[in-house]
Amino acid sequence: MGRRYDTISFLTDYGTVDEFVGVVKSVIREIAPHATVIDLTHEVPPFDIRAGSLTLARTVAYLASGVVLAVVDPGVGTDRRCVAIEVADGEGVMVGPDNGLLAPAVAMAGGAGRAVVLSNTEYHLEAPGATFAGRDILAPVAAHLCNGVDLYELGDPIDADLLLPGVVPLPREEGGAIVGEVLWVDHFGNCQLNVGPDEVAHFGDVVKITVGELTGTPNTRVAKRADTFFDLGTGALGLVLDSYGMLALCLDRRSAAQELCIGPSDQVVLEPVSDDGGSAGGAVSVPVNLRIDR
Amino acid sequence: MGRRYDTISFLTDYGTVDEFVGVVKSVIREIAPHATVIDLTHEVPPFDIRAGSLTLARTVAYLASGVVLAVVDPGVGTDRRCVAIEVADGEGVMVGPDNGLLAPAVAMAGGAGRAVVLSNTEYHLEAPGATFAGRDILAPVAAHLCNGVDLYELGDPIDADLLLPGVVPLPREEGGAIVGEVLWVDHFGNCQLNVGPDEVAHFGDVVKITVGELTGTPNTRVAKRADTFFDLGTGALGLVLDSYGMLALCLDRRSAAQELCIGPSDQVVLEPVSDDGGSAGGAVSVPVNLRIDR
Amino acid sequence: MGRRYDTISFLTDYGTVDEFVGVVKSVIREIAPHATVIDLTHEVPPFDIRAGSLTLARTVAYLASGVVLAVVDPGVGTDRRCVAIEVADGEGVMVGPDNGLLAPAVAMAGGAGRAVVLSNTEYHLEAPGATFAGRDILAPVAAHLCNGVDLYELGDPIDADLLLPGVVPLPREEGGAIVGEVLWVDHFGNCQLNVGPDEVAHFGDVVKITVGELTGTPNTRVAKRADTFFDLGTGALGLVLDSYGMLALCLDRRSAAQELCIGPSDQVVLEPVSDDGGSAGGAVSVPVNLRIDR
Repeated sequence: MGRRYDTISFLTDYGTVDEFVGVVKSVIREIAPHATVIDLTHEVPPFDIRAGSLTLARTVAYLASGVVLAVVDPGVGTDRRCVAIEVADGEGVMVGPDNGLLAPAVAMAGGAGRAVVLSNTEYHLEAPGATFAGRDILAPVAAHLCNGVDLYELGDPIDADLLLPGVVPLPREEGGAIVGEVLWVDHFGNCQLNVGPDEVAHFGDVVKITVGELTGTPNTRVAKRADTFFDLGTGALGLVLDSYGMLALCLDRRSAAQELCIGPSDQVVLEPVSDDGGSAGGAVSVPVNLRIDR
Repeated sequence: MGRRYDTISFLTDYGTVDEFVGVVKSVIREIAPHATVIDLTHEVPPFDIRAGSLTLARTVAYLASGVVLAVVDPGVGTDRRCVAIEVADGEGVMVGPDNGLLAPAVAMAGGAGRAVVLSNTEYHLEAPGATFAGRDILAPVAAHLCNGVDLYELGDPIDADLLLPGVVPLPREEGGAIVGEVLWVDHFGNCQLNVGPDEVAHFGDVVKITVGELTGTPNTRVAKRADTFFDLGTGALGLVLDSYGMLALCLDRRSAAQELCIGPSDQVVLEPVSDDGGSAGGAVSVPVNLRIDR
Repeated sequence: MGRRYDTISFLTDYGTVDEFVGVVKSVIREIAPHATVIDLTHEVPPFDIRAGSLTLARTVAYLASGVVLAVVDPGVGTDRRCVAIEVADGEGVMVGPDNGLLAPAVAMAGGAGRAVVLSNTEYHLEAPGATFAGRDILAPVAAHLCNGVDLYELGDPIDADLLLPGVVPLPREEGGAIVGEVLWVDHFGNCQLNVGPDEVAHFGDVVKITVGELTGTPNTRVAKRADTFFDLGTGALGLVLDSYGMLALCLDRRSAAQELCIGPSDQVVLEPVSDDGGSAGGAVSVPVNLRIDR
């Protein structure tokens, strides 16, 4: 027998209107009644593997040791594989489709250990249709892992290096500017960028931000570096060090995403504020040539 | 004492914006701290007994043994009865209003065993108003059942045959066609029909679908039989065997409900594709007289 | 060591689309795996301290003994304090920002006992940014409380009388009328008022209701007193004794908030129905001078 786990962290694009999440938990409950399921989110946009994988990658450092059950699976029922991957010397096991959803989180957790394709149907439920692998394959596997079934019982070992990689966009430097993108817009409208604080440290306390260049509606603003939303003051755009250590475009008590009309994957260019007509120094001022949106 | 239960499966139309669900769980927690509550959904459309009863009926085979607590209760506070019904030789007990909500699930679980009306107010909470039976009557009863209180302690035995039946729409045959309806539209826009695969098996791999006849805007399409969404290919309507064993109108990564402008209870007519102008054989073709939306 | 707790009741404005709630639960799970978290709601409108505090105040009488973790925190990361406050002789501890969110619930629970500001960073997580106090400060503190860490271990004692008070609006009498306001609109559109049944008892079974006076679009209706929604009959406005013992403007199976175009904080004037042109007695009639919407 393998190691026994007590917690399943659960992420999907199922939404919460249907009973999908509840049925998966019921299946787990019948097989591994001792396991506690923690919902990370079930509101990943439908089929959005990128969003799901970024959410997992952000959160993996905070997850309780145990099983991660992740389902964003447009290829459900096809020959895309379902897999289970050990991480952190078996502290955790990630279970889901092999479509790039798990890969960034596996990397953040230190890389893959043992991995299997879930080919042993003895640990699956018999299913009337092929469209609910979360219920029929992944949930029972997660529960059996909690019961101490060894990973290699669940299917054929595979080379973790051959798993489908995820796509984590990296910023690039271009003529002194950082060309990044929005990774995530949160509930409050804060726009997390794929840019860390070190990358713009030499720009100073105020950074020039341009969005919309690729869509033909460029919008340039200045953003103040700040540690809290409140420090920005009313209506001022800011670059705040967010809770995951990345820079985020933010407003105090308002949605930066709405203000800037940007969303996930949209390009954001960060530049130092120029000497002519801008504020090169410490004091924040808004150049007159900037378009200020409502 | 009766049997002790560890799990309460919980379905309502309370939504998740208010604290109703949390308060019910708090009441349960105080009375039966050992019980685990599994949310099936709380997004049944307000007062929609049909939708709630179909959700329960779909899921009952997957629920953990224990108590089912279901509340869609437009008649709350009136003389409609609250009931508890044993199913599967006491493996489960369904608790809710006697308004048809529970009946289809009871039938799916093999029929009713012992049943009581919840007339013993000793097991209820005192309440300042009459509008929250979930908190004041049903939750404490579910919790006391988990603690091993016998069903007959909770109120007066009733004849389960006299419970208000639910309404499960059946398809009918009409001149070689199957006239069915949409039971459920899921988060992804898949439209589950009240039609099983056997009923259209003789139609072959392609089926003619007509919706909107009753509203004066008939729309006829062909749908391909498929096992997975992906197999449909981009933009093609399909009849997929869904995860509950029923046929569903589906598109790959798009909403069939939006594409066809249909929702729950809407009529769907399934017919064999005719010989003239249609594809009688194996290959899928789209007759030119079909209206192709967008 | 202090008292050990088993339950954390959890309320935020985080929404459920992002992983915030799940990450907080993961942090709790790692520190206090025996604790059960009950979600009250995470759909408090963003930054709406008033709505959050009223929700807590309504529900506190029903909460399981243990820790209440509440986060609506527009001042996150600033010098606003995070606090923990014992209530009910240590039956409960409320943990959250000191911004008025907790105060009404503390009062409803009988007032504050010991209180501390959460200044002992040994019980916090190290954080890459300052914007997620729920994860980095409040969640670990709540979990350590569950483990039996004494309140005074968590920081410096403070005088609970100096905590920021909440604002609970009181109705006033004005020329025989009661001038109240909407405290809360629930999922079904019922509008809870800050008016109890005793305050309008002398008005009789029918009450004149005026909304919209402050916005220049006054709308006067009569509302029937009733115990259930069903008793109102189709389309008739009612004043129903709600599940928390307050009066609520309601319709049967329809949204009173939509019908009257009102929301939280909006003024509602309640008056006896006058003798001329109105119904003074028992029978309900709708005076012809009332505007009946749709």
